[in-house]
Amino acid sequence: MTAFQEQAAALLGPKGFLTDPAALAPHIRDWRGIFQGAAIGMALPASTAEAAALVRLCRDHGISIVPQGGNTGLSGAATPDAGGNNLVVNMRRMNRIRALDPLNNTIVVEAGCILADIQSAAAQADRLFPLSLAAEGSCQIGGNLSTNAGGINVLRYGNARDLTLGLEVVLADGSVLDVLGGLRKDNTGYDLKQFFIGAEGTLGLITAASLKLFPALRRRATALVALGDIAAAPMVLARCRAATADQLVSFELLPRFGLALARQHGGGRLPLDHPADWFLLIEAGSPSEDIDISGSLERALGEGMAAAEIADGLLAESEAQRRELWRLREAMVEAQPREGAGIKHDISVPVAAIPAFIRAATEALAAHDSSLRPLIFGHVGDGNLHFNVLQPAGADPAGFQARTGEINRLVHDCVTAHQGSISAEHGIGQLRREELARLKSPVVLAAMRAVKQALDPDGLFNPGKVL
Amino acid sequence: MTAFQEQAAALLGPKGFLTDPAALAPHIRDWRGIFQGAAIGMALPASTAEAAALVRLCRDHGISIVPQGGNTGLSGAATPDAGGNNLVVNMRRMNRIRALDPLNNTIVVEAGCILADIQSAAAQADRLFPLSLAAEGSCQIGGNLSTNAGGINVLRYGNARDLTLGLEVVLADGSVLDVLGGLRKDNTGYDLKQFFIGAEGTLGLITAASLKLFPALRRRATALVALGDIAAAPMVLARCRAATADQLVSFELLPRFGLALARQHGGGRLPLDHPADWFLLIEAGSPSEDIDISGSLERALGEGMAAAEIADGLLAESEAQRRELWRLREAMVEAQPREGAGIKHDISVPVAAIPAFIRAATEALAAHDSSLRPLIFGHVGDGNLHFNVLQPAGADPAGFQARTGEINRLVHDCVTAHQGSISAEHGIGQLRREELARLKSPVVLAAMRAVKQALDPDGLFNPGKVL
Repeated sequence: MTAFQEQAAALLGPKGFLTDPAALAPHIRDWRGIFQGAAIGMALPASTAEAAALVRLCRDHGISIVPQGGNTGLSGAATPDAGGNNLVVNMRRMNRIRALDPLNNTIVVEAGCILADIQSAAAQADRLFPLSLAAEGSCQIGGNLSTNAGGINVLRYGNARDLTLGLEVVLADGSVLDVLGGLRKDNTGYDLKQFFIGAEGTLGLITAASLKLFPALRRRATALVALGDIAAAPMVLARCRAATADQLVSFELLPRFGLALARQHGGGRLPLDHPADWFLLIEAGSPSEDIDISGSLERALGEGMAAAEIADGLLAESEAQRRELWRLREAMVEAQPREGAGIKHDISVPVAAIPAFIRAATEALAAHDSSLRPLIFGHVGDGNLHFNVLQPAGADPAGFQARTGEINRLVHDCVTAHQGSISAEHGIGQLRREELARLKSPVVLAAMRAVKQALDPDGLFNPGKVL
Repeated sequence: MTAFQEQAAALLGPKGFLTDPAALAPHIRDWRGIFQGAAIGMALPASTAEAAALVRLCRDHGISIVPQGGNTGLSGAATPDAGGNNLVVNMRRMNRIRALDPLNNTIVVEAGCILADIQSAAAQADRLFPLSLAAEGSCQIGGNLSTNAGGINVLRYGNARDLTLGLEVVLADGSVLDVLGGLRKDNTGYDLKQFFIGAEGTLGLITAASLKLFPALRRRATALVALGDIAAAPMVLARCRAATADQLVSFELLPRFGLALARQHGGGRLPLDHPADWFLLIEAGSPSEDIDISGSLERALGEGMAAAEIADGLLAESEAQRRELWRLREAMVEAQPREGAGIKHDISVPVAAIPAFIRAATEALAAHDSSLRPLIFGHVGDGNLHFNVLQPAGADPAGFQARTGEINRLVHDCVTAHQGSISAEHGIGQLRREELARLKSPVVLAAMRAVKQALDPDGLFNPGKVL
């Protein structure tokens, strides 16, 4: 044991400091196995005071801090790089719900709380915490905030940033920034919490957050719709938003190709027998029992059919049918690995530019290599697409994976041409660092570096990520 | 003319650079006449390129930049201090609407656009830009963003920050930070726009913004309610939010004392004949014609009466009656100066703490001086109160004004004890700088200074404000 390791062990106790390689192994690589890093240990602070003391200890010994939640990220932000001085700081022991106030519609949680546990606590108080994404059973709120997580309810409730009223953060000098106040309005100087949300652990260590709650949803209306043409998607969105009194929570694009894969690999059947290229999974939700959200959505879809935007559609008649529709989307995601390797992109463009972007990007890919198979789906209501490129059928997966840089550049250049973002909700981490440096303006990069320098002058937090 | 003045005049032309004292006079004091400053001139750039060149010129000559919009602020942030090197940079010539995209629900505006003009442009495209406040006919969006303005629709749509998708900002080195992208999701590094929103012009010069639009409202329901007890306000809020499917846009507190003043000074009559101490003005809005928002609100209020939270209430039956209810609120604000001097506070506490705060603050004031007359009203749905203390009846206004510091401390200490904010929506500017320094933690102040140092190392922007 080094002097640092001994002092960390003394500070945090046997449950709070691990160096056993077997225990460390799942924490120094990401779950997809893309990033393999190294660490001199893993700290698990049990309180804000322990976390602050740990940060001071790391600073004194020149140890780098890699904040980690559920390690469910897709960009390698929570996984250490190969540097020799990394300490993983896993937040899972700080998992208390400190307070829930149904009248203030706030919940104060520690960074290690599992997202699903926060959802459940809110539901028990007849409230909704709307952040919802595939990893919700294991991801932690500290990670969600550090990546400004999105998910399936952004259209109505916003990203993780929009749901955050306050934070508690350990800064690089070991001081604790307490801006946890659960206020809806506070204009007393710079809104410091904003700096740490989406910073992927590079500016400080989030230890707790004060989050917004909403009235629980009492009615949902869910529809599957076949589009006449992808060009109609933004019009259908506008129609549904207005008709449902802006109570649209999800507006997801599903491609015919993806649904065919889902069917082929044993997923749900397609309840809509239509040869359209593109489908929409639309859900509205209302906290009021006496508002007929289903009738409103049905009328909007009827108008969309009359305007030839929509070719066919069905409304879920029961909770079972609703689940079946959502199951289609999950089955599509699960089917992808069965087709071999895929090169993923998490992009966004202005909502109105979605049709033009999809056309341009698929044409550019086809011109480059007509055997590539784009699988394009996602949160189209937010302008966010998961633009995945599957390997040519039957090709060698490793050989295809090796083409990642080339395919990334092709897709990202098309995103940039459409004023889009190369990371809509997955962050930069290690995965997109080079592309960020390639595509962001020098002014933006310089401003980011100035902020990093101001808040973490010694580069203590999460080296090798983002910048 | 100094060398700087000559070069500024050459850069900006006769319409773009003024030194005439008569022309400057209304721009170097605030409209309430509280802050009188000094300036060597006023620049009015007509384009981002001009603004950037001007910032470089100021940097080279050591001239301080005081960004100014409509100069309607209440904290003196847009008014120069008494320093000898101030240049007012008024943005009114940059007032173009650069783009409006109804399908993307975005509008791109220059900083000098009048708020009401943005609202009108949105309405013409059958969309809503929800930021709305008393000064909307003359305030500019650049100022709204720099103060993170609130107003009467925050409950449903959020503060100015929540309505902002992107910014264009001239930085201290004269470079232009273009993060104008109209994206709903973008997690490519630090969210730089957040740093400048609410920074009151101390970190850079906002030249344009990309803002969110929403479906236009088609139906409104407006009610005036007499509360059995102030303690019931948060319960009524929760009830109304849920029942209206979270379509509550305004939830305003009106005190009996304020309504009496309104009546006395010739404002509207009180359509509700009830001896309650506290009233609520509640408005819900729906973009859907076929959702009966009025019926939902009525049912919620009926349940509130059955639960004895509400003593009496009425629903506006017509647009004329709706205006009459809102007129009550305006008349109350207008009546205040007729009562002599008032010491204003713009505070927030957690919504659930509103009743306890009001009780504690009024008791503390009465114990201090029983002749003080607190007039407490505002956006209680956001936990935001305008807590104004009117002079004792018949007292000397100037003598009362001289007690500002003493009254401020009394109210602000009570706010702090309730985990509140001493500036909910009016900002810090010059008005609250000392109180900010007194009440914020050293960690918070140090972090703010680090950010200021990082983005404006020479202190070019808006000296003497906020920090």
